[in-house]
Amino acid sequence: MMQNLQPDMPTIPDILVKKGLFISFEGIDGSGKSTQARLLAETLRTLGHTVLLTREPGGSAGAEEIRRLVLEGDPDRWSPETEILLFTAARRDHLEKTINPALARGDIVITDRFADSTRMYQGIRHGTGADLRAMVDALHSLMINVEPDLTLLIDIDADLGHARAVSRAGAEQRFEDMGRDLQARLRDGFLTLARSAPRIHVINGAATPDQVAQTVLQTVQFRL
Amino acid sequence: MMQNLQPDMPTIPDILVKKGLFISFEGIDGSGKSTQARLLAETLRTLGHTVLLTREPGGSAGAEEIRRLVLEGDPDRWSPETEILLFTAARRDHLEKTINPALARGDIVITDRFADSTRMYQGIRHGTGADLRAMVDALHSLMINVEPDLTLLIDIDADLGHARAVSRAGAEQRFEDMGRDLQARLRDGFLTLARSAPRIHVINGAATPDQVAQTVLQTVQFRL
Repeated sequence: MMQNLQPDMPTIPDILVKKGLFISFEGIDGSGKSTQARLLAETLRTLGHTVLLTREPGGSAGAEEIRRLVLEGDPDRWSPETEILLFTAARRDHLEKTINPALARGDIVITDRFADSTRMYQGIRHGTGADLRAMVDALHSLMINVEPDLTLLIDIDADLGHARAVSRAGAEQRFEDMGRDLQARLRDGFLTLARSAPRIHVINGAATPDQVAQTVLQTVQFRL
Repeated sequence: MMQNLQPDMPTIPDILVKKGLFISFEGIDGSGKSTQARLLAETLRTLGHTVLLTREPGGSAGAEEIRRLVLEGDPDRWSPETEILLFTAARRDHLEKTINPALARGDIVITDRFADSTRMYQGIRHGTGADLRAMVDALHSLMINVEPDLTLLIDIDADLGHARAVSRAGAEQRFEDMGRDLQARLRDGFLTLARSAPRIHVINGAATPDQVAQTVLQTVQFRL
């Protein structure tokens, strides 16, 4: 029933010349990726670069509204499929309103999570994993079809990540309330993804934040 | 880039046995389709049927929230592509929470607008029509993949529809503010769609509401 699909359809026509560098941070909850995204942004600014630090879900006015719609209220009020559609809508808005304009200006864009998080969290979190993962990929190809130039996967042991995540308090407990077994499955999923995508660099997140930041900077500097 | 797409993916696993009848009303603004949907629901109830009357965008708690997100605020705050994603998310929720459970119970479901409206309004409204229409169809195949058993297209002249639409006041002026030329293009689009889809029955909407209702009832009665 896909006879109307046009794989080469130009879904992102706005960005004609991309001059900047698009970097994403990924990892399980408690991996320290948000801290590392912030530290990298600060360091690159000190080095004279113009940096846009953003996050998902969210990162633009519309996407933040969609974020609230998904993350507030009863966690089961949306089906996995509807949630994937809402996250994809938020990502499309984030891309159009925030990421693409910054890349067109030549900025370095650093985002705390991007499509890989949807592939893992929405794609393998729920029981019927294989089907949902295929759905996430198909939806991404159709409506987003953009990957970061460089993805830094901050990798830590699931037990450590889980312990760090539960020790934090926050208004949005939803993604932190998932147990240790799920964290282990997500970690395996991220590492499997990294083996198939050269853009993804795996960084050992068990070291001190300063040591991790040093490794991150070394990885990024080759691309500047 | 669509290698992960599985066209036969079961996107709606919840409805194993569909016993009811799924009817949609479509048409341009001012066609009288909302009136006709209501009249048909009343008549079928009088005849002893259990009828669920619903509408799009909306029709479930989550979908109504998405409706507000799309229809309130600056009309240009979402790109056509993001808008299509949000409407598809709302439709998925509407289907899961409202339509499918009613059909599984054996009810007659009457909806004021369904996917054909997205094909027309989001698919041909904007300048780059061909690409967006293909995107709407691909997204529908992937995430919805359900059509009504019967669609009643209430067809009227674009001038008449436009005059009726602008004479109405309402909080959501957005879909009414489109000009006469666009109404004519939408009407042509609906009629072209009807020629390719046997489920769509074209009803002359220029007659009196009672006369139109009589024709609608005759068309539906063959399916009961």
